[in-house]
Amino acid sequence: MIANDEIPEPHDKDGLALITQGMAPHLNALDGFLREQIVAFEPEVRELVEFCLQRSGKRIRPILLFLCGECEKQDPSQIRAAAVLEMVHLATLVHDDILDEADLRHGLPTISHKYGAQNAVLLGDALFAHAVHLSAQFPDTTVCRLVSQATRTVCSGEIAQSARKDFELITKETYYRLIQMKTAELFRVACHLGAFLQGHPEETVKAVSEYGNHLGIGYQIYDDLADFFGEEAKVGKTLGTDWASGKITLPVLLYLQEYPPGERQQLLAEARQGGAKVLGNWREAMQEKGIFETVAQAVDEEITKGEKALGKHAGEMPALNLLPLGEFLRQKVQKLRPSFAVI
Amino acid sequence: MIANDEIPEPHDKDGLALITQGMAPHLNALDGFLREQIVAFEPEVRELVEFCLQRSGKRIRPILLFLCGECEKQDPSQIRAAAVLEMVHLATLVHDDILDEADLRHGLPTISHKYGAQNAVLLGDALFAHAVHLSAQFPDTTVCRLVSQATRTVCSGEIAQSARKDFELITKETYYRLIQMKTAELFRVACHLGAFLQGHPEETVKAVSEYGNHLGIGYQIYDDLADFFGEEAKVGKTLGTDWASGKITLPVLLYLQEYPPGERQQLLAEARQGGAKVLGNWREAMQEKGIFETVAQAVDEEITKGEKALGKHAGEMPALNLLPLGEFLRQKVQKLRPSFAVI
Repeated sequence: MIANDEIPEPHDKDGLALITQGMAPHLNALDGFLREQIVAFEPEVRELVEFCLQRSGKRIRPILLFLCGECEKQDPSQIRAAAVLEMVHLATLVHDDILDEADLRHGLPTISHKYGAQNAVLLGDALFAHAVHLSAQFPDTTVCRLVSQATRTVCSGEIAQSARKDFELITKETYYRLIQMKTAELFRVACHLGAFLQGHPEETVKAVSEYGNHLGIGYQIYDDLADFFGEEAKVGKTLGTDWASGKITLPVLLYLQEYPPGERQQLLAEARQGGAKVLGNWREAMQEKGIFETVAQAVDEEITKGEKALGKHAGEMPALNLLPLGEFLRQKVQKLRPSFAVI
Repeated sequence: MIANDEIPEPHDKDGLALITQGMAPHLNALDGFLREQIVAFEPEVRELVEFCLQRSGKRIRPILLFLCGECEKQDPSQIRAAAVLEMVHLATLVHDDILDEADLRHGLPTISHKYGAQNAVLLGDALFAHAVHLSAQFPDTTVCRLVSQATRTVCSGEIAQSARKDFELITKETYYRLIQMKTAELFRVACHLGAFLQGHPEETVKAVSEYGNHLGIGYQIYDDLADFFGEEAKVGKTLGTDWASGKITLPVLLYLQEYPPGERQQLLAEARQGGAKVLGNWREAMQEKGIFETVAQAVDEEITKGEKALGKHAGEMPALNLLPLGEFLRQKVQKLRPSFAVI
């Protein structure tokens, strides 16, 4: 459970690191479980699987599952379900890196960069198949059903996004639908599975799933904002990577909507070629036009929607475990706030 | 059920077409079921899914399942299971075409050629996720477990193959392991599921699964042989496409083993650059060295192994449905036999 004093201080650079302190045994058990899976793959794949597991990120989906599972004791089914979600997530990352033609992720070479796009296609497939294999080991088909449904949604979201890499055409509604699919769905299922495996009644499971969904949407909007206003972007290290790869982000969407449709493509082309300087100009213009505030508010709105979805369950477990995450996300957004005055 | 008189005559060019005549209602129901699935995908993906379903091949895996399911009546669970296998197969084809950088399959443009490799990666993912989603709708986890295990094996087989595109290093044992993984596994599971859903006892299910496995290995060896000696290859239409893409096939493997290791790479390079003329020379040399016969015999051996695996079940259903398939494959091999005399 997250205590309020565990909410990271402003100097916390990693974000979720402090929240995970309380669940170190679970995360260690998860790491151990994932490592054990390596030998379940064919010999030729093991090196790639290991390479991929080493690149694991913040484990947000397992953390959500453990929080909703109340992580009071180490429940093997929770560890296995968390591993399933993490492997599905890793599989989508491996395939995403091919789509983005990314060389680096979190500063480390991507699978597709190191082993080639072809191996990355196949590794993603094998990881996903193994995740489903693990989810079929539960006594009934619930986990399998939820995981396959979520994976289908995530994949469809990626296709839809890839089909709409044109900022002129996308609406805000489409943007929300896309980020629900590609990010919030796995957040939602993580909460669902945690509460379900802990034996909570259906109504509670539904409420925390909805919270997870809104948190996922909020998290993605925050991530979009950080692409422009995060520390890395500020010092020119990542240079709005999502923006550069043509991904649809809310700040860019709102910025372009300030201009006539005919000018948008031109603006984007200039921006992509212009590098750090143009990014700085955009950032400044976004503040002038109040876009930072609008996007920050959009994050806040999602968290509030999630809180409302909890309804009468807000005062009980596992909701009590989840609510600090929303607060934490609100703080993360505030930390992005540009330090220079709005003109 | 296949009657002996339905075994195709030498003028049958499609192979399995005649065998499927008896199960037209099942295959039509399968087509209908697959078409119904299109709307279950997100709008942006539907065109790709439809495009992909239209490119469906011979439906060998569903046919195996229906044969083992005795196809006496249209059982919805058999139709659904057949759809699951076909979608997994289609998903692997979509991803394979990316790996092979193929522009055409069965004379039609591939997904990756028409919609780009990125969409092909994602479509394969979505198809596979939907297949698992369908398999999670069965009352217990058996189908989900078998399908995910098979998919994992197929993917690992593809990775292993991709990691060993060097004919000098591969052994016959490795070749057999690879084709078991990438081809025979889905044949095996098709037989398993058909017999399982029809309610056969475990021992029978195991026996027909083993037959399916050997049939799959035999089929792949036949396919490798057809890459060199099939009608299309003879008239220079496909020019040993597997060979050209660097895939490991038994004829090439045996041919290269006739030469000292140091010369093999050179031979391959010459062959790939030489086109139709070199292919003709190889074909002739393969006959001289008895390689056609060795490979044809390898197909026969697998079918015989399958027949032995059926054991005491060979005289009963569903084995009686399967045995003509092996005979049919034997005939297909004979039809490849080169018409010009061995020197």
